[in-house]
Amino acid sequence: MIDQTGLGVALTLSSLQKQYSTGELSLQQVIESIVADLECRGDDGIWIYRVSKQALLERAAILTQMNPRQREQLPLWGVPFSVKDCIDVAGLLTSAGCPGFVYEATHTNPVVQKLLAAGAILIGKTNLDQFATGLVGVRTGYTVPHNAFSTEYISGGSSSGSALSVAMGQVSFSIGTDTGGSGRVPAGFNNIVGLKPTRGLLSTSRTVEACKTLDCLSIFTLTAEDAQTVFEVAQGFDPTNPFSRPMGQPLERLKAYSANQSFRFGVPRPDQRAFFGNTDCEALYEKANATLIQLGGLCVEIDYGPFLEANDLLFNGPWVAERYASVGKFVETNPAAVFPITREIILKAKTLTAAEAFEGLYAVEAFKRMIQPLWDDIDCLVTPTTGTIYRIDEIEAEPLRLNANLGYYTNFVNLLDLSAIAIPNGFQSNGIPSGVTFISPPHSETYLAGLGAAFHRACNEQLGATSFKVGDIARGLSVGV
Amino acid sequence: MIDQTGLGVALTLSSLQKQYSTGELSLQQVIESIVADLECRGDDGIWIYRVSKQALLERAAILTQMNPRQREQLPLWGVPFSVKDCIDVAGLLTSAGCPGFVYEATHTNPVVQKLLAAGAILIGKTNLDQFATGLVGVRTGYTVPHNAFSTEYISGGSSSGSALSVAMGQVSFSIGTDTGGSGRVPAGFNNIVGLKPTRGLLSTSRTVEACKTLDCLSIFTLTAEDAQTVFEVAQGFDPTNPFSRPMGQPLERLKAYSANQSFRFGVPRPDQRAFFGNTDCEALYEKANATLIQLGGLCVEIDYGPFLEANDLLFNGPWVAERYASVGKFVETNPAAVFPITREIILKAKTLTAAEAFEGLYAVEAFKRMIQPLWDDIDCLVTPTTGTIYRIDEIEAEPLRLNANLGYYTNFVNLLDLSAIAIPNGFQSNGIPSGVTFISPPHSETYLAGLGAAFHRACNEQLGATSFKVGDIARGLSVGV
Repeated sequence: MIDQTGLGVALTLSSLQKQYSTGELSLQQVIESIVADLECRGDDGIWIYRVSKQALLERAAILTQMNPRQREQLPLWGVPFSVKDCIDVAGLLTSAGCPGFVYEATHTNPVVQKLLAAGAILIGKTNLDQFATGLVGVRTGYTVPHNAFSTEYISGGSSSGSALSVAMGQVSFSIGTDTGGSGRVPAGFNNIVGLKPTRGLLSTSRTVEACKTLDCLSIFTLTAEDAQTVFEVAQGFDPTNPFSRPMGQPLERLKAYSANQSFRFGVPRPDQRAFFGNTDCEALYEKANATLIQLGGLCVEIDYGPFLEANDLLFNGPWVAERYASVGKFVETNPAAVFPITREIILKAKTLTAAEAFEGLYAVEAFKRMIQPLWDDIDCLVTPTTGTIYRIDEIEAEPLRLNANLGYYTNFVNLLDLSAIAIPNGFQSNGIPSGVTFISPPHSETYLAGLGAAFHRACNEQLGATSFKVGDIARGLSVGV
Repeated sequence: MIDQTGLGVALTLSSLQKQYSTGELSLQQVIESIVADLECRGDDGIWIYRVSKQALLERAAILTQMNPRQREQLPLWGVPFSVKDCIDVAGLLTSAGCPGFVYEATHTNPVVQKLLAAGAILIGKTNLDQFATGLVGVRTGYTVPHNAFSTEYISGGSSSGSALSVAMGQVSFSIGTDTGGSGRVPAGFNNIVGLKPTRGLLSTSRTVEACKTLDCLSIFTLTAEDAQTVFEVAQGFDPTNPFSRPMGQPLERLKAYSANQSFRFGVPRPDQRAFFGNTDCEALYEKANATLIQLGGLCVEIDYGPFLEANDLLFNGPWVAERYASVGKFVETNPAAVFPITREIILKAKTLTAAEAFEGLYAVEAFKRMIQPLWDDIDCLVTPTTGTIYRIDEIEAEPLRLNANLGYYTNFVNLLDLSAIAIPNGFQSNGIPSGVTFISPPHSETYLAGLGAAFHRACNEQLGATSFKVGDIARGLSVGV
């Protein structure tokens, strides 16, 4: 197991804020510990750009000089975080995982603005599958990061560095993106929580877009409670962004999870599940369902067919043309600057017609309508986050097919306008984690975070790759390393 | 002026129902008078298919045999109507204005189902610009219809026959369609009311689609009150249609028009108005604005620029690919069956890419967001329905450019998800009518119909091409021809 920063405290919000309030830990100590850890590790592919120690300490000093009343008004006072490097922060470089694409951002993405205004401290920008295209983490023009639990296995992507920076205890949370699973797959692979809120609630302005109509910002944290807290700060209607949406009303019964209330969860019919030969992941998924039943859930087998068809639509349909609309011109004029597989995927879009684009849009509306009655029957759909995981060499040998396998339980979610949370679900026999994902209609974030937190506590596994367990946090303990 | 059916009563719902209830007129008399009129006129391009006299009388007999309680439950008992021939009625042929395309419909469009279930009597199917592509009325494979007031002038389209059947007093209402103005332009040209409700409220299932994401069914009537009554019967969520939407909440102040309440209406800045040299239409538009001010309206000049840009987007953007997605295969395999200009337009779509389609979708979302604040300032936008009208020979000489001119005030409405009503606005010096259109946010139908009715009464012009005036109806009079 990999150690965290050695502060003797998990970087969850509750632990950190308790330490701050009792004075056991100062913000300066936290910053110095994080910087020392990052310097010690060197370039392991997690970070593309780090804010200088001096700038961090200056920011820490400003926050520390605040009086208690000012501090109380900042829900994320002194909380370190990272941002996926396809999201702009004014004055910093944005690479989108492509060294030849780098530009200096002139504006800060509105979500990052809100987090900074709430007192959070930006440690730096994290690695990703180039142009947020991929679920693997190896498609980067920078150092390829590896799984938090193994140098042989992939980190997952596209928000690879975001997930790793949280799993390694380097930051309390990270902002990633999620178009077809990029905010969930790397959470599952690194034993952390990945919240993918309803499309449009976290503004995607000032990002390098993958698919403008589908992109979401996502939140990586050690616990589901933290994901909910960060979400509450990060959300907000952005009138300058046509794809921004105001917070909506969830279904009445999905307003909040309650331990006293039974719930119905859907699972794919056994013949529609895919673990790609990974019996450990299969057993872990069955264990998750058993845990949910213990928590008061009623398990309902559902027809996963329409979801698989929607997956196919995302993968083989016209949405890749959005990636072309976003960065296609750059890819065409700078072919050598782009990762070959990424270039191939994005340029494939040139063969797609407008009629095919509209037919894709018709199909997705039909799928949405088709699955609508399901939400009368179940509160959430529960799937593995992925059916399996691959080694880096396996992905390099078969980059397209294996990448597609990793989206079996994630691709359809944004297409069908759903919200989802990925939660840790224990470890395979080789020590690599496996995740479970809860999926509900739009605007169900609070319900999903509540259910996710209950599930996470019931499993009581370690937090990310740190030496802390969920239960330590629940009991409010500060446990040494 | 062209006479109506000679029943001595305008076919408005209130007149007709009063005559029915007092026994002054029987349903059989109405049917026989309509059939006699249609037979007398022969093929003047209004109708593509008419229900046989025998079938109509059988339907009339069934309705007549109902007891009073049964009749009371039918809000459209004995009301004759027509349907644009791109809308399916089971057992009848659908042509979409193209003789080579004709098929026998197996199902009835849900709106038509509701109208029939409410006691209305379908007289037949009406002519249109082929595949609902055009605003002129001359692009048909059947007899070209002419304006209700002149054999030289166009009827307008694409719902040409629908508008004419109402204007000529042959039916009480007609169901047309409206993608870029087809439910409003022919209303303006023939001195009747054209209601284009919010997208998705009237199910477009079982129609030959033009642009699936934009198409609306529309309602043609002699009065705005009738449009509202028919709308209330016709609307309803269609779970089988992914583009169907449930009725939504209008803005609070747009729930209903009240004569006692002042309102703010927007008009394009003078330099952004276009009348294409038609000073009569310009003067009529100014008269309309003066009438609205008399009704309590405050006139606000607005920037029409974004609306013009949205028009351009519909005309030159990717939506034509939806027409290709709908009937492109037929057009390609049966080129000789299709009107040349229609074929040219639809096949142009083949050159458009999926990336261009998505870029069009982005642009329209940006325009929607851009105009959003306008609805805080005004209750409705008031424009001419068209800036001018053309003779049939003018349109035949310059089919594309003049057609585009006719959409100057209509094209953007569905693209920007607005609701609209076209209302008669008096006559040019050559005896051809001119219309005015009120445009509001989605779900404003009731408000628009109320404002439209007040405006229509204030003008007190004749109803369609009949010998009745608006005031006759308002006073509940039955006036002989």
